[in-house]
Amino acid sequence: MSNQKEITAKPIGKKVTVSSPATVANMVCGFDILGFAVNAPSDVLSVSQTNEPGIHIFNEDEYDLPTDPEKNVSGAALLALLDKAPDVKGLILTSKKQIKPGSGIGSSAASAAGAVVAANELLGKRFSNEDLVQFAMFGEKVASGVKHADNIAPAIYGGVTLIRSIFPLDIVPIKPPELFVTIVHPQIEVRTSDARQILKHTVLLKDAIKQWGNIAGLVAGLLKHDYDLIGRSLEDVIIEPVRSILIPGFNDVKRLCKEAGALGGGISGSGPSIFMLSKTQQDAEAVEEVMKDIYNKIGLDYHTYLTTINNEGVKVIDNG
Amino acid sequence: MSNQKEITAKPIGKKVTVSSPATVANMVCGFDILGFAVNAPSDVLSVSQTNEPGIHIFNEDEYDLPTDPEKNVSGAALLALLDKAPDVKGLILTSKKQIKPGSGIGSSAASAAGAVVAANELLGKRFSNEDLVQFAMFGEKVASGVKHADNIAPAIYGGVTLIRSIFPLDIVPIKPPELFVTIVHPQIEVRTSDARQILKHTVLLKDAIKQWGNIAGLVAGLLKHDYDLIGRSLEDVIIEPVRSILIPGFNDVKRLCKEAGALGGGISGSGPSIFMLSKTQQDAEAVEEVMKDIYNKIGLDYHTYLTTINNEGVKVIDNG
Repeated sequence: MSNQKEITAKPIGKKVTVSSPATVANMVCGFDILGFAVNAPSDVLSVSQTNEPGIHIFNEDEYDLPTDPEKNVSGAALLALLDKAPDVKGLILTSKKQIKPGSGIGSSAASAAGAVVAANELLGKRFSNEDLVQFAMFGEKVASGVKHADNIAPAIYGGVTLIRSIFPLDIVPIKPPELFVTIVHPQIEVRTSDARQILKHTVLLKDAIKQWGNIAGLVAGLLKHDYDLIGRSLEDVIIEPVRSILIPGFNDVKRLCKEAGALGGGISGSGPSIFMLSKTQQDAEAVEEVMKDIYNKIGLDYHTYLTTINNEGVKVIDNG
Repeated sequence: MSNQKEITAKPIGKKVTVSSPATVANMVCGFDILGFAVNAPSDVLSVSQTNEPGIHIFNEDEYDLPTDPEKNVSGAALLALLDKAPDVKGLILTSKKQIKPGSGIGSSAASAAGAVVAANELLGKRFSNEDLVQFAMFGEKVASGVKHADNIAPAIYGGVTLIRSIFPLDIVPIKPPELFVTIVHPQIEVRTSDARQILKHTVLLKDAIKQWGNIAGLVAGLLKHDYDLIGRSLEDVIIEPVRSILIPGFNDVKRLCKEAGALGGGISGSGPSIFMLSKTQQDAEAVEEVMKDIYNKIGLDYHTYLTTINNEGVKVIDNG
């Protein structure tokens, strides 16, 4: 399909446009199983049908991402969907990314999830959210070589999601209390494959026990709307001590943001972005100032986001 | 204090009598962090004050447990309490155990928790539940050499409890939906120290991730009253495969009880008892029959209990 002449693809019928959110995976102690969606930043994607077979991709942003659907995150996800929709000849995807690839806040998941949700809306919602996660994971495989759902699931379901199991897929939506999210993206590159490679393959049982105490505490805190418990549980004795070495300023950000009022936080995904959760907007603003101070002093370019948890996931903004 | 002449201790004032429940620790995937209390069996303990310094123990059961308070589970717990109540000279404890020591359903925790709750009632409830857990853990140390709270906490708080952390102590009560509990106690001895010794000190990261997915799922299932999720989450890839070897018939019990309608279950504490959770009494009865069949066929003595989760913990039955 990669040798389709894109220029010949003509849209038929309506075009569906969605906003697809950034997401924070791992959530400190919830490595590989927890993630949440945020209200900013987000990507905008549009999908329409065409009689030209295959997936036809048009990028309307600065990132120069591949347009070969098998090498494109959205494309791979749409190919998986098309495989289960034999009546559909082809799809045209237009993508305008605002979530910088490699930032650690689910840029690839936003591309994959947004594309399949838009296509599903176009096709009369014939697929379940779980189906859509399955399709979108093919996009994650293009991005990182691994089918994982801890960004995809929150992007599609909204809120916090628990991936209890990947095989078989078992997604548990967890409705959190109101939480403000401050994110800083120091402009360095941390490749997901590097961040994964430095992890040890074994962990001490006593550390694993601490970790599952924290995970259980975090899930209980979110469901019981117990902010203090959420804060106490946002500790990671296994992954963070290893991965944080790749992120300049990490320890200062964590310590000083908590002193400034954050409940807690840590590495977003595999980094380099760092997120902090706060109970109030005022705390979240103070946290943002701390983050800016730290990276100004280090002299590293950065970008900050002050947002909230997004409880609806990918949103249809135009289905006309 | 062990050389007090017990015969000289005379009670002063009122006597408080409590019923102290059996408990199931670990809860399959929640090794060392989760536990729950059941409505049967339970121990009966009475505490009154005396002018004779120290703790004076009278056993009214068949188990011939030590009466030296430093070697007695209830005694060690009461000594810790007495240390924080300098105005109290001495306490008399009468204990009538119905939970067989070594059965794996929190016999020592019932002794320790019951004693301190009774004493606290006697002394005008001057201590918090968290204080009481701290005192009672001294009893667990006498019993197993380790201060752990995964039986003590549910015995005192009732319901399901999460021990997020032991140092500092962080107990999170989790109110479960109605659940029927079937327990079988095959009459063999599994020493806690042996059950602990055979555990590996390291675990594979990928297994730890599976485990914390299940723990998060179990906590979410309990809080969301999602029975299917509870059932799916009652899997343990780390502890059970090792410890179940010490329990004859374990694999048959687990498989056939689930076929008979149980949501799931596993080793209670460090065994040898096995528990199963069911949504209905009918399922729990079918599960009990399966357990009986298996141990009748093996030819091993056993005892079964069909009960429910106890949501109030140690209960004052007479404070007169």
